[in-house]
Amino acid sequence: MKEIDGGVCAPKGFRAGGIRCGIKGRTSKRDLALICSDRPCVSAAMFTANLVKAASVLVSREHLAAGSCRAVIANSGNANACTGEAGIAAARRMAALAAARLGIAPEETAVASTGVIGVPLPMAPIEAGIGALAASLSAGAAGHDAALEAIMTTDTRKKGGALEIEWGGVPVRLGGMVKGSGMIHPNMATMLAFITTDAALPAEALDRALRRAVKHSFNRVTVDGDTSTNDMVLIMANGAAGNSPAGGGPGFSAFVDALETLCIKLARAMARDGEGAAKLLTVTVRGAADEDAAEILAKSAASSSLVKAACSGADANWGRVLCALGYAGIPFDPALADIVYASSAGEILLCRRGGPVSFSEDEARRILAEEEIEIRITLGNGPGEAVVWGCDLTCDYVKINGDYRS
Amino acid sequence: MKEIDGGVCAPKGFRAGGIRCGIKGRTSKRDLALICSDRPCVSAAMFTANLVKAASVLVSREHLAAGSCRAVIANSGNANACTGEAGIAAARRMAALAAARLGIAPEETAVASTGVIGVPLPMAPIEAGIGALAASLSAGAAGHDAALEAIMTTDTRKKGGALEIEWGGVPVRLGGMVKGSGMIHPNMATMLAFITTDAALPAEALDRALRRAVKHSFNRVTVDGDTSTNDMVLIMANGAAGNSPAGGGPGFSAFVDALETLCIKLARAMARDGEGAAKLLTVTVRGAADEDAAEILAKSAASSSLVKAACSGADANWGRVLCALGYAGIPFDPALADIVYASSAGEILLCRRGGPVSFSEDEARRILAEEEIEIRITLGNGPGEAVVWGCDLTCDYVKINGDYRS
Repeated sequence: MKEIDGGVCAPKGFRAGGIRCGIKGRTSKRDLALICSDRPCVSAAMFTANLVKAASVLVSREHLAAGSCRAVIANSGNANACTGEAGIAAARRMAALAAARLGIAPEETAVASTGVIGVPLPMAPIEAGIGALAASLSAGAAGHDAALEAIMTTDTRKKGGALEIEWGGVPVRLGGMVKGSGMIHPNMATMLAFITTDAALPAEALDRALRRAVKHSFNRVTVDGDTSTNDMVLIMANGAAGNSPAGGGPGFSAFVDALETLCIKLARAMARDGEGAAKLLTVTVRGAADEDAAEILAKSAASSSLVKAACSGADANWGRVLCALGYAGIPFDPALADIVYASSAGEILLCRRGGPVSFSEDEARRILAEEEIEIRITLGNGPGEAVVWGCDLTCDYVKINGDYRS
Repeated sequence: MKEIDGGVCAPKGFRAGGIRCGIKGRTSKRDLALICSDRPCVSAAMFTANLVKAASVLVSREHLAAGSCRAVIANSGNANACTGEAGIAAARRMAALAAARLGIAPEETAVASTGVIGVPLPMAPIEAGIGALAASLSAGAAGHDAALEAIMTTDTRKKGGALEIEWGGVPVRLGGMVKGSGMIHPNMATMLAFITTDAALPAEALDRALRRAVKHSFNRVTVDGDTSTNDMVLIMANGAAGNSPAGGGPGFSAFVDALETLCIKLARAMARDGEGAAKLLTVTVRGAADEDAAEILAKSAASSSLVKAACSGADANWGRVLCALGYAGIPFDPALADIVYASSAGEILLCRRGGPVSFSEDEARRILAEEEIEIRITLGNGPGEAVVWGCDLTCDYVKINGDYRS
């Protein structure tokens, strides 16, 4: 498995582009993206668990039911959520506009939106911009970059990547991009993740691989505990690599591993770029009864406002970690809990068997001053282990979200 | 029912006091409190739902099992949580010290602590201060004030109150105090609530009245989603009013109402004084399937970091409210949801039947600029209704909690 350039355009047969059509108003930022394959795909997708689903989610879910999506059109600046029948019509129209330009069926086209909720999506800029959008498509890294920029909202970093593996002697590539910064919590986020691959594989196997990867990546990220109305992760596989399709065997295993690796990379980048975040927080729980228990416990610690604020202040307040584990709703014995804080500056044991150990405050502060902090929790001898990614809570989060609509 | 002065000392036969013994270090703030009755009591209590329970909670739960607690000793500056066997011994010793001074049994004495978790409780200042603490006891409002000051941590306001009702022609009084500002979430909070009454009533009826009152008050407050290790609400009833004891009838009903009214007053005050909070946020859900569903939905909106940050910025971002309802895990039809924002400056409909209505941004901003904001949500025609109190999320919350231990 090796890292390569090109993002979603790295796999053969995919192009991407992005333009500023004007949904975001007078800013010069791009706000409309398109990613497509030059041939039919098998596809798989997962959507938000929020009961309130954006129009784009409802329409995409319908289109994707056939598992043959080969293009996605996405806008930022407006979530097209809580927008009623007009919103559904707008999402359908977006898909139809893109499909017509690409000469494919609307049902082969997914739609995604991110931005403010509850404001009607202005269709005029999209109608006017669709030609330019299609013209912007490129098979190079520039296409990936333009599309990625066009789906960013409060994101401050471009979050993408690509990998190459071998599948039966044939090079197979995977590329991905993700946007997501706030309204981010397990079961996905205001998170749009688009993944492309030139692998040939059965739709059922693709779906299985995606679910496994998402469980260990995007569903283990928390920024602020808010699960968005618009979450979507979509993978399109066009088979252009020419490998012999299979839903098992070493080639498929390598593909599954690569997909998980790519998704974890994107998920970590999303946590690191959490709204207002200055630090990436990795919480590992070991020794829990099983993996699900470990995941719930780790999420509880990573989501705690008090734990996050203490990380922001480089305060080794491990009691808040144990407290957050305690209200997670998962049985464990606090008297067996060990807590270690770690970073590239070292590691330090703060809590042994549920109680305090004496430690150097200076050393703890030095460790917590780093931009990537780990909290490692051991709860006993159980086999359950999980890693969750989050970020610190800063004043900037409050500032960004105190007046988002203005 | 009428409001009276005196707090926990308003009911006959109760005294309170508070001193600075030095747990908080070199500050001049009080840190040790005592409240007691001059005669035996029946008592009832509720404790944190956190799996990780402070030593004070474990010892108090044991002592209170008999339902005859007549005194409570409480300290701030140290939570005595995650402190192992030494912590348990310290909590027992606190109870014994207070009991000896009062000439009562240790089992008649509750212990409460609030402050930093995971640091051994220093007993020397408590041993040295117990005489001065007993000497500080007073039956007047000054006793209430001193005790209340001594349990405050990041609290910025004194939160207390007292009510008088008639029970069979006899005046009966209830008084209360609460501390709580951060680490506050349903199922209580870093919340210590001590309530006194001179009512005569059976222990079983007192317990029933307390559970009902807590359900509609303290368990409907959320500040930051963190359920503390140290929560405790304690009520002591000493019968000094001389009413004829009963667990039913109009006198008891008046008592139950008064207790709920007092607890709601204290709960609202706690939300208003949430760490860093500039605004009290009241979320009402009506039309849900039942009361429990309404409560869970209202809490989801009141706990959302995004909703809270938008309130801080006076941003009428109702889409975040609907989004937060959507991930609460309770079925409802978003297409029936109406959302109104209100304050003393007026009220404004922002969302009708799940979709946007046009409204004046200026008017919305004027309404949201007030210090007490209401979000009223109607979901349909169901009978379920609940009110939850929370607060806005500000930079000050982050500042307070970024370096709490220093």
